[in-house]
Amino acid sequence: VVLANAVGPKGHVDAIDPASLDYGAPETLGQAQNRISQSEIGSRITWYQSSPLDFLASVKHDTYDVAILCHSLWYFASPTSIAETLRALKGKTRRLCIAEYALSATHPGAVPHVLAALTRYSLEIHNPASDENIRTALAPSAIRAIAESVGWRLASDKTVVPDEDLQDGKWETKSVLTDAFLEQVKQHIEDENINTVLFSMREAVKNAVQALGEKPVRTMDVWTAVFE
Amino acid sequence: VVLANAVGPKGHVDAIDPASLDYGAPETLGQAQNRISQSEIGSRITWYQSSPLDFLASVKHDTYDVAILCHSLWYFASPTSIAETLRALKGKTRRLCIAEYALSATHPGAVPHVLAALTRYSLEIHNPASDENIRTALAPSAIRAIAESVGWRLASDKTVVPDEDLQDGKWETKSVLTDAFLEQVKQHIEDENINTVLFSMREAVKNAVQALGEKPVRTMDVWTAVFE
Repeated sequence: VVLANAVGPKGHVDAIDPASLDYGAPETLGQAQNRISQSEIGSRITWYQSSPLDFLASVKHDTYDVAILCHSLWYFASPTSIAETLRALKGKTRRLCIAEYALSATHPGAVPHVLAALTRYSLEIHNPASDENIRTALAPSAIRAIAESVGWRLASDKTVVPDEDLQDGKWETKSVLTDAFLEQVKQHIEDENINTVLFSMREAVKNAVQALGEKPVRTMDVWTAVFE
Repeated sequence: VVLANAVGPKGHVDAIDPASLDYGAPETLGQAQNRISQSEIGSRITWYQSSPLDFLASVKHDTYDVAILCHSLWYFASPTSIAETLRALKGKTRRLCIAEYALSATHPGAVPHVLAALTRYSLEIHNPASDENIRTALAPSAIRAIAESVGWRLASDKTVVPDEDLQDGKWETKSVLTDAFLEQVKQHIEDENINTVLFSMREAVKNAVQALGEKPVRTMDVWTAVFE
């Protein structure tokens, strides 16, 4: 969660991430933070290694102008933990900006990414200790419903089609097609039917990549929303 | 299951279906059987309202030339019940022919059908009393693995792209997008995470239909295989 106040030349940003500083590739979270801290705006950012809920517990009312959750909601462990965080932000920031994958493929090349995200999501809900990129792949309408249920009002939203260079679609698709994915299914799922659903979903991902022929896998649409 | 012997002018077909005779629309199973019985080949078909397993229990070795499971495996209650039936057919028929949806969309218009089938499948595994068209949407490779595990050998297979007129893709997609689908999710699923996965999958179906714009939803590819 990124929290900004006094947006403008005197503004300051508090950036909260619960992840370990050695998380991430090719650049780790710690390396990225160092690089940004050494930039022109570095002095105006404070990093916090904390869960957003813990951090927000000690934040006073009306502290921030805007909170930004940019591709972070899908990392959350459950819809409930998303609801708790959005509720904790109420009153502490005027606006709430969210960007998250839209589960839609305006470009046909992004169909494998949509299928791969749903497949990964279907596995990770059976792995309570998951540290995957996708643990709770909510649809935009579900995110909106949660935000509204804790008192936010949608001011505007827009769906954008990412540039061809964004690699996330390729990564996620590849990750579902590894043998490691099948190993994780074996490890976390005992039920024969759930196991076979996951196998069918993974095969559908494989088929969707094949259907593209020589064309590359693209990254799915992104939903951007502003709540007040 | 359709079982045929003495293929040719003297051939006879035993057709087994466990469903109620009033099942199906716009023509019921009983109406369809009557219509076929009154046709030129009607006298050479015997209808049995029975589970394939019960029927096969009293069939002698080498009775049939060919067994045909044409879009019937996805109705089965589980991979185990499919394995039992394919095992029971061993030795009673020389060949086994299977046609089933392939979970692939060669035509981009069939993407909603693939997503809808996986979504319906993900719901029905939580409904033991399901009488839906899709209860066990196995991928071709999973069907092949089951057949081989009980002693069948794949002789040949081929994937075909259905004609635009085949309505199944439209029906299945529509059925997942009904409010009744959401009611069934509520009824059968208590777990918050499984519930939300199904909601995300349904939204992906909706988005895939929208991405087609004015173009109609098509029916996905069909896998056809001959085992010996």
